Amino acid sequence: MALISPSRRLRRTPFSEGVEAAGVKAYTVYNHMLLPTVFESVEADYHHLKSAVQVWDVAVERQVELRGPDAARLMQMLTPRDLRSMLPGRCFYVPIVDETGGMLNDPVAVKLAEDRWWISIADSDLLFWVKGIANGYRLDVLVDEPDVSPLAVQGPKADDLMARVFGDGVRNIRFFRFGLFEFQGRQLVIARSGYSKQGGFEIYVEDSALGMPLWEALFAAGGDLGVRAGGPNLIERVEGGLLSYGNDMTRENSPLECGLGKYVSDSQLETCFGGRALREERAAGSRQMIRAISIEGDLPGCDRVWPLFAGGACVGQVTSAAWSPDFGANVAIGMVARAHWDAGAVLEVETHEGMRRATVEAAFWI
Amino acid sequence: MALISPSRRLRRTPFSEGVEAAGVKAYTVYNHMLLPTVFESVEADYHHLKSAVQVWDVAVERQVELRGPDAARLMQMLTPRDLRSMLPGRCFYVPIVDETGGMLNDPVAVKLAEDRWWISIADSDLLFWVKGIANGYRLDVLVDEPDVSPLAVQGPKADDLMARVFGDGVRNIRFFRFGLFEFQGRQLVIARSGYSKQGGFEIYVEDSALGMPLWEALFAAGGDLGVRAGGPNLIERVEGGLLSYGNDMTRENSPLECGLGKYVSDSQLETCFGGRALREERAAGSRQMIRAISIEGDLPGCDRVWPLFAGGACVGQVTSAAWSPDFGANVAIGMVARAHWDAGAVLEVETHEGMRRATVEAAFWI
Repeated sequence: MALISPSRRLRRTPFSEGVEAAGVKAYTVYNHMLLPTVFESVEADYHHLKSAVQVWDVAVERQVELRGPDAARLMQMLTPRDLRSMLPGRCFYVPIVDETGGMLNDPVAVKLAEDRWWISIADSDLLFWVKGIANGYRLDVLVDEPDVSPLAVQGPKADDLMARVFGDGVRNIRFFRFGLFEFQGRQLVIARSGYSKQGGFEIYVEDSALGMPLWEALFAAGGDLGVRAGGPNLIERVEGGLLSYGNDMTRENSPLECGLGKYVSDSQLETCFGGRALREERAAGSRQMIRAISIEGDLPGCDRVWPLFAGGACVGQVTSAAWSPDFGANVAIGMVARAHWDAGAVLEVETHEGMRRATVEAAFWI
Repeated sequence: MALISPSRRLRRTPFSEGVEAAGVKAYTVYNHMLLPTVFESVEADYHHLKSAVQVWDVAVERQVELRGPDAARLMQMLTPRDLRSMLPGRCFYVPIVDETGGMLNDPVAVKLAEDRWWISIADSDLLFWVKGIANGYRLDVLVDEPDVSPLAVQGPKADDLMARVFGDGVRNIRFFRFGLFEFQGRQLVIARSGYSKQGGFEIYVEDSALGMPLWEALFAAGGDLGVRAGGPNLIERVEGGLLSYGNDMTRENSPLECGLGKYVSDSQLETCFGGRALREERAAGSRQMIRAISIEGDLPGCDRVWPLFAGGACVGQVTSAAWSPDFGANVAIGMVARAHWDAGAVLEVETHEGMRRATVEAAFWI
């Protein structure tokens, strides 16, 4: 691994002081901001995440705020997912698609009120697209990045830790719902969500000044629960099939290829961006699809696209891979062409350290 | 400095193989791509840049391509700079401004033809804004990121090295103009431009497959010129007052504050995005402005905003700083409020390792 040059452009977060004190070893850069990725080691962090509770600095999940009379109209314009059933207090995973049907981001929309939304984004400047659309259509809506920095609490003991800080009411938050809970006299949005399969919460910390007090309160309350600092874990997310925008999908991919068809509503395809392309793809069938893939042998880190081959022809690519201690296998995520995407298909993957045998799996590992 | 976690999302470039072989020590992340920043050391690289010639992997300067009947119209909509005098073969530095007058990017526009432009971008997904505007205004133009990766050749011996590879014709390229030159049977756009004050060229490598052959040709031709791999150098760019988007300016800043008033044309302010805000700011005078600042004492790396104080009140901020061996001073870039921006004003700057004395300079150091 190489070093990262420090600069203001790679933004620190309201929790950086805590992250550094916890001994962060590596970062990635995400939405022009530092995202801590390793504390003890990727594997040690993984075991801990699955057995205890971690606090994650995911301030990189920046918010695009929509506020004003046209906020709901704009939100619906942005995604092929039908939002008519969405009430305030709900979070919806929403593919955002351009005019060609390509993915621009795969955020979570948070409906605060009919006229106020947050879009909690993956790694692209979705703000620029949303502002461009709002300007082009002359919508009556303000679009901006507010001072909101999510802090995630993830792991099997997340409910216990959160209850100690916010009260037992947090236990009643249902999946992808949120409530308002008090911290130091301020009301914070807390959702049951997060980028792991271990369960937990995301706290939308509205006001950077609350960042370190909240970080410290969580660690002070969770000593006996074994709370540690952590971050999105490569092994755990690949086991669980959690896609990563920029890794497993890009603007080159449609949401249907990404296995997100259930978030593409037929009712929206007449009006949403890329609707025609998505209708045609749905009618004809996708030519490739996201799949769980296992790989044999020793693997280098997957820092680039690894082509998949069948009989010498390229039939897809692997974009994330890791050794899974719990499943005793190299787990991976890739796109596979239709003729080869059935479970059990045996392929070859060309890593940058040589060819390996790969198998299409029926499902992800969790 | 911390380590950077590898992933496909932090894209490699067509030159990564050469960069690694040259012993890269650190990167930054820029436009979701790896930008090499250090080879020997920041200071050794700086001395070499100023005395010899370097080849820089600046593939991170991604292009937004506009192609079609409305390309020129769209390009003019995007910037307050009047482009009517711009002929094909020219490069223009163009502030890109949103509806509030805030900077979205500060790219170089490359006019290939009336109906075909490249926008060579700084670190933000300008593609998303441009696509949003093109869609919102239903313009007849294709907007995409083509397979074009700039490679810069910078330093006092840049002309000699380039002439050996492309012929003496490159010596006649004027500043911010470009010509087409052949390499391995392909015509490449070569501009006299680059992110240093040492002179040189940017080669727009159209087709990733040409990347390593061109890299190797430059090194093979330049052994006796002392050619080395390099990258944008913090010390040299601060000495020269080369602003960095995301460091020295963000969406919070107008182009007038950034000292880019000469690229804001009165004739465009009736129609460009943010025109009203820019007219009002121009009439009233900017409340703060980019300034060269010298700082006394030992400095940590400037990885965050350092507030500037006068008499206990915050009057600005420093966003880039480095020790300059050639000028024997800590050179810095910051924004300073009007009452304190005159040359000679003495301020205090709050680094994350304590207060230092700072002085507003009359000009940058080169």
